[in-house]
Amino acid sequence: MIHFGVIGYGYWGPNIVRNFNQIEEASVAAVCDKNLEALKRAKKLYPSLEHTSDYKSIINSSDIDVVAIITPVSTHYQLAKEALQNGKHIFIEKPFTATVAQAEELTELAEKKNLQIMVDHTFLFTGAVRKIKEIIDDDVLGKLYYYDSTRINLGLFQHDVNVIWDLAPHDFSIMDYLMKERPIGVAACGQSHVNNGLEDIAYITVYLTGDIIAHFNVNWLSPVKVRSTLIGGEKQMLAWNDVSADEKIKVYNKGIDVTNKEGVYDLLISYRSGDMHAPKIDQTEALKLEAEYFIDCILSGRKPINDGHAGLRVVKMLEACNRSLQSNGAVIDL
Amino acid sequence: MIHFGVIGYGYWGPNIVRNFNQIEEASVAAVCDKNLEALKRAKKLYPSLEHTSDYKSIINSSDIDVVAIITPVSTHYQLAKEALQNGKHIFIEKPFTATVAQAEELTELAEKKNLQIMVDHTFLFTGAVRKIKEIIDDDVLGKLYYYDSTRINLGLFQHDVNVIWDLAPHDFSIMDYLMKERPIGVAACGQSHVNNGLEDIAYITVYLTGDIIAHFNVNWLSPVKVRSTLIGGEKQMLAWNDVSADEKIKVYNKGIDVTNKEGVYDLLISYRSGDMHAPKIDQTEALKLEAEYFIDCILSGRKPINDGHAGLRVVKMLEACNRSLQSNGAVIDL
Amino acid sequence: MIHFGVIGYGYWGPNIVRNFNQIEEASVAAVCDKNLEALKRAKKLYPSLEHTSDYKSIINSSDIDVVAIITPVSTHYQLAKEALQNGKHIFIEKPFTATVAQAEELTELAEKKNLQIMVDHTFLFTGAVRKIKEIIDDDVLGKLYYYDSTRINLGLFQHDVNVIWDLAPHDFSIMDYLMKERPIGVAACGQSHVNNGLEDIAYITVYLTGDIIAHFNVNWLSPVKVRSTLIGGEKQMLAWNDVSADEKIKVYNKGIDVTNKEGVYDLLISYRSGDMHAPKIDQTEALKLEAEYFIDCILSGRKPINDGHAGLRVVKMLEACNRSLQSNGAVIDL
Amino acid sequence: MIHFGVIGYGYWGPNIVRNFNQIEEASVAAVCDKNLEALKRAKKLYPSLEHTSDYKSIINSSDIDVVAIITPVSTHYQLAKEALQNGKHIFIEKPFTATVAQAEELTELAEKKNLQIMVDHTFLFTGAVRKIKEIIDDDVLGKLYYYDSTRINLGLFQHDVNVIWDLAPHDFSIMDYLMKERPIGVAACGQSHVNNGLEDIAYITVYLTGDIIAHFNVNWLSPVKVRSTLIGGEKQMLAWNDVSADEKIKVYNKGIDVTNKEGVYDLLISYRSGDMHAPKIDQTEALKLEAEYFIDCILSGRKPINDGHAGLRVVKMLEACNRSLQSNGAVIDL
Repeated sequence: MIHFGVIGYGYWGPNIVRNFNQIEEASVAAVCDKNLEALKRAKKLYPSLEHTSDYKSIINSSDIDVVAIITPVSTHYQLAKEALQNGKHIFIEKPFTATVAQAEELTELAEKKNLQIMVDHTFLFTGAVRKIKEIIDDDVLGKLYYYDSTRINLGLFQHDVNVIWDLAPHDFSIMDYLMKERPIGVAACGQSHVNNGLEDIAYITVYLTGDIIAHFNVNWLSPVKVRSTLIGGEKQMLAWNDVSADEKIKVYNKGIDVTNKEGVYDLLISYRSGDMHAPKIDQTEALKLEAEYFIDCILSGRKPINDGHAGLRVVKMLEACNRSLQSNGAVIDL
Repeated sequence: MIHFGVIGYGYWGPNIVRNFNQIEEASVAAVCDKNLEALKRAKKLYPSLEHTSDYKSIINSSDIDVVAIITPVSTHYQLAKEALQNGKHIFIEKPFTATVAQAEELTELAEKKNLQIMVDHTFLFTGAVRKIKEIIDDDVLGKLYYYDSTRINLGLFQHDVNVIWDLAPHDFSIMDYLMKERPIGVAACGQSHVNNGLEDIAYITVYLTGDIIAHFNVNWLSPVKVRSTLIGGEKQMLAWNDVSADEKIKVYNKGIDVTNKEGVYDLLISYRSGDMHAPKIDQTEALKLEAEYFIDCILSGRKPINDGHAGLRVVKMLEACNRSLQSNGAVIDL
Repeated sequence: MIHFGVIGYGYWGPNIVRNFNQIEEASVAAVCDKNLEALKRAKKLYPSLEHTSDYKSIINSSDIDVVAIITPVSTHYQLAKEALQNGKHIFIEKPFTATVAQAEELTELAEKKNLQIMVDHTFLFTGAVRKIKEIIDDDVLGKLYYYDSTRINLGLFQHDVNVIWDLAPHDFSIMDYLMKERPIGVAACGQSHVNNGLEDIAYITVYLTGDIIAHFNVNWLSPVKVRSTLIGGEKQMLAWNDVSADEKIKVYNKGIDVTNKEGVYDLLISYRSGDMHAPKIDQTEALKLEAEYFIDCILSGRKPINDGHAGLRVVKMLEACNRSLQSNGAVIDL
Repeated sequence: MIHFGVIGYGYWGPNIVRNFNQIEEASVAAVCDKNLEALKRAKKLYPSLEHTSDYKSIINSSDIDVVAIITPVSTHYQLAKEALQNGKHIFIEKPFTATVAQAEELTELAEKKNLQIMVDHTFLFTGAVRKIKEIIDDDVLGKLYYYDSTRINLGLFQHDVNVIWDLAPHDFSIMDYLMKERPIGVAACGQSHVNNGLEDIAYITVYLTGDIIAHFNVNWLSPVKVRSTLIGGEKQMLAWNDVSADEKIKVYNKGIDVTNKEGVYDLLISYRSGDMHAPKIDQTEALKLEAEYFIDCILSGRKPINDGHAGLRVVKMLEACNRSLQSNGAVIDL
């Protein structure tokens, strides 16, 4: 039995506790939160768990194998470092850390101590992303042309991070998982309207190997909720609409046919428009699959797809965004 | 009676002829096209018109008051200049010209000769844009926060221009018309996949006075057709979906309420979410209204909203886009 | 403190337990189910509750004030009767009973014993239905013309009832609540394809006072999920789309204008098409509101809108449907 | 060259003239309308055609081979009869005639005189209906379960017919074309609100051989425009949404799996939910294909799928609807 200590029982923590608790080989032993109201809610639902407002009692407990860190990003580094130093595996909220340097230090530390880090890139475990991964790996789309993502809605909180650090980790981790191509440059622009100088809308361009552009539209001030990703390919094109109840993924047999008749100045370009196919998407709760996968990684010693290195790659892009914002939108090399 | 000569009878020319012809005070006297097939189609439909493959015979004709130039942008300057020099008003396809210098020369020439230039920014005459103009002018949205436009679909032709010069003139002219705020900088990035180095996807950011960002997503390689514009405001927010059959414009009583309790570090930010209102949109054909308006401007001497200066403002943004593309996405000051 | 005993812990029972449990003045004291797996699930989540597979121990318990009956309709009458005879209020799943006679007997019994019956017409407590009620009561729609409901999806279970008894109670109870007009006749037709002669698709027409037709399309064999209700009125028209994430209710300023120029044979009929308005819908969980309302009714003695009489009115329509099905679709007078 | 005379140049007539005119083997020689304004519009567009307000001059003309009758249904019988008697083929608007007896007389007359009748069931020539026909004929859906059609919008004119005779001919002709099963009974109910006793909403059930139900919802008083048809089958299910710009037809690999374990009382019924497929739809104008097909039928002597017999089958259902309306919704045997 693998015992979990969970630090942070705010919005997302209860889902973590519920999901790790329902796995046969796992059990949540203790919950920590500085907010006494949150602790009270945890107590009512799980009276037999240990409850504490002191994270040290979790990190120091010899009964705990894994520490789940479900707290604001500014606290990640310190908590994760102490937990790793005390020999605990860690499951940590996204984004992994507040800086690249922190992420590098933590991944090194984990490797030295032979401990697992899983960064909670939950989206990788949704039926939609797993299906898109399968489609791309099967070369259904052919050579990729572009990746275009829009993640907008009304959703400004009193935050310590801007909209990029809040929303883009989802999309950065998804793109990192789906595509072989690697980011080589990042440019970002944005604007702050109401939140102490923290951007509430932003547009990000990521330049990838293979001459591919990825673009990300993130916005806390949109009247409509959009969760849309387009992936253009030479053979087919894919549209993922995550707010649609059905048919989240549509694969279009559409594209451009180029006939190079007599040299480059004589291209004949024509449309191709065929059937559309919407594959069935598995509906299993993503966090359930992620939790089971983490247990499996701990037991087998296998490195998860969303390990510290994956978390680091996302933080590198996030940090580059901030530097680009401060440099008038200049491209920051990675 | 105002007599028109129309140069260019390809895709859009027939609509121009039909619309000017049905106005009581106007009549199309001659049509010119170098393509004899196009000329044949014109002859069949309008046997009594003069047909020619030599534009000079239109520009030199003493019977013609207005020359409509419905040809590729690379030919605009020469045709317009000759027409103006011969004392003709001009109605000219968008984008106005291929360079800022050309647009400036033409507007000066027209003013010197007291002639009208109307640039065919048809969208300004749609029911949707006229309604949005009314909504913004009535201060329904309050202080504007951002302008976010997406105009994408599968639509690559063998073009002499990139996707920005093809699609963005629509959006630049609409934004120019709707908003008081003026562009001060432009940044663009894009990629060419199949078309001889001409970008087929591009992302443009326009920095406006008043700390407003406008963003434009234009793409010839999208499997889905999207024509969507979001305008965020302090009081309300507007979404314009031009591919929707009904309810193209939705005004959301949504936003953010900021309470500054004790200094800037103590902002209390909360959502506001209320009713949505979809105003009725007038369905009159935009080109019909534009044509009538042009006749009215010629007769009254009034300057149209889409005059040479409006055309010039759009070309300035387009030219800045190209320069930004060549400068690795750097912001080009206007 | 009002103590509940809940009989039936299958699909819906857990929601009942959770919602009554979270009300301050109420508490669930015991849960009963014949299925031991279900009972096990209840025990794990609520270890301190009494668990039993014998409903008698709930109905006979002197600690219990209210019995919630969340079981198949065929068992409702017997369970409710015994509970009422033992002096318990009842909260009972829809449809109220399997026959009109049973419903009449139970409502009489409850009145004689001065006990409350609440039939679980949950939909009446949704934000959407409460908003429509407000709109109709405010005479926004004017004189009503028709009520047209479609409730279809893929959803056949091994049932003891046909699709009408499964799905139409929702719509019958909603219509009964929203409209003053009373049903005077019912006709139904349907077909069974896979389920032992129990209809899996059916179409129902209810004739109401005031020459209004209501129509209900219920279907377990539809590939798409539709939850749509149209209410046509003289002044405005309303569309309720319950599967839409936003804008569930749209009120259209559309209609017909009739000018009676010179007698009935000279009607001049024209369209009227104006703005559309989508009011904000309260998102509170319907069952939470219903549970609180029930507690309030018990404490105050007030009769709920969804009391035994409301349940009886729905069962009358359901019974008439079955008789019409057996009479080749003939209209059954109510 | 086949010469057409067209009687009726109102809403639909211009489309008929345009489409027959553009066929190489056909030409419209004369147009007739009693409305002088309509005649004036025809003259302006086609100055070389003969124009007349006397239909006799068309029916008696020895230069005319085919008479197209694009007039209200009440005039169909007389005009068609005279045209056939004068040896003309006829192309006639739907519904074919006002009574079954008229349709029978006309089809007999045409056969006796070896003339063609084509009833303008335009929908049969749309890309959508042709694709559905192909899908059903290829047994993609398996045994059919039901046919469910909704055709509603705001659209009341000052009519001589009720909503059934206006809208249902579309759906009756489509169903008649798509399905092998034959109607054996019809029941209809409806209501008139504003139009002199002519029903403006109606619901129709058609009982078909093979225990299939078809249902039709037609409504002139709906705030939303719906053109939706569901066809349920044992193997797959089809949804046709004709107001959707793309993906009008969706084929769902969804259904019910029935396992009959031990006799009829032990059915095990489970869902099946798989991928969805949206085939590409041909966009050619339906009327163009229909016109070409008619010319082909005249030249080859082949009987069209939409001949007088097809028109008669639709009128039989329409007449039965009216009788059912007068009989309180009773099923009328066919």
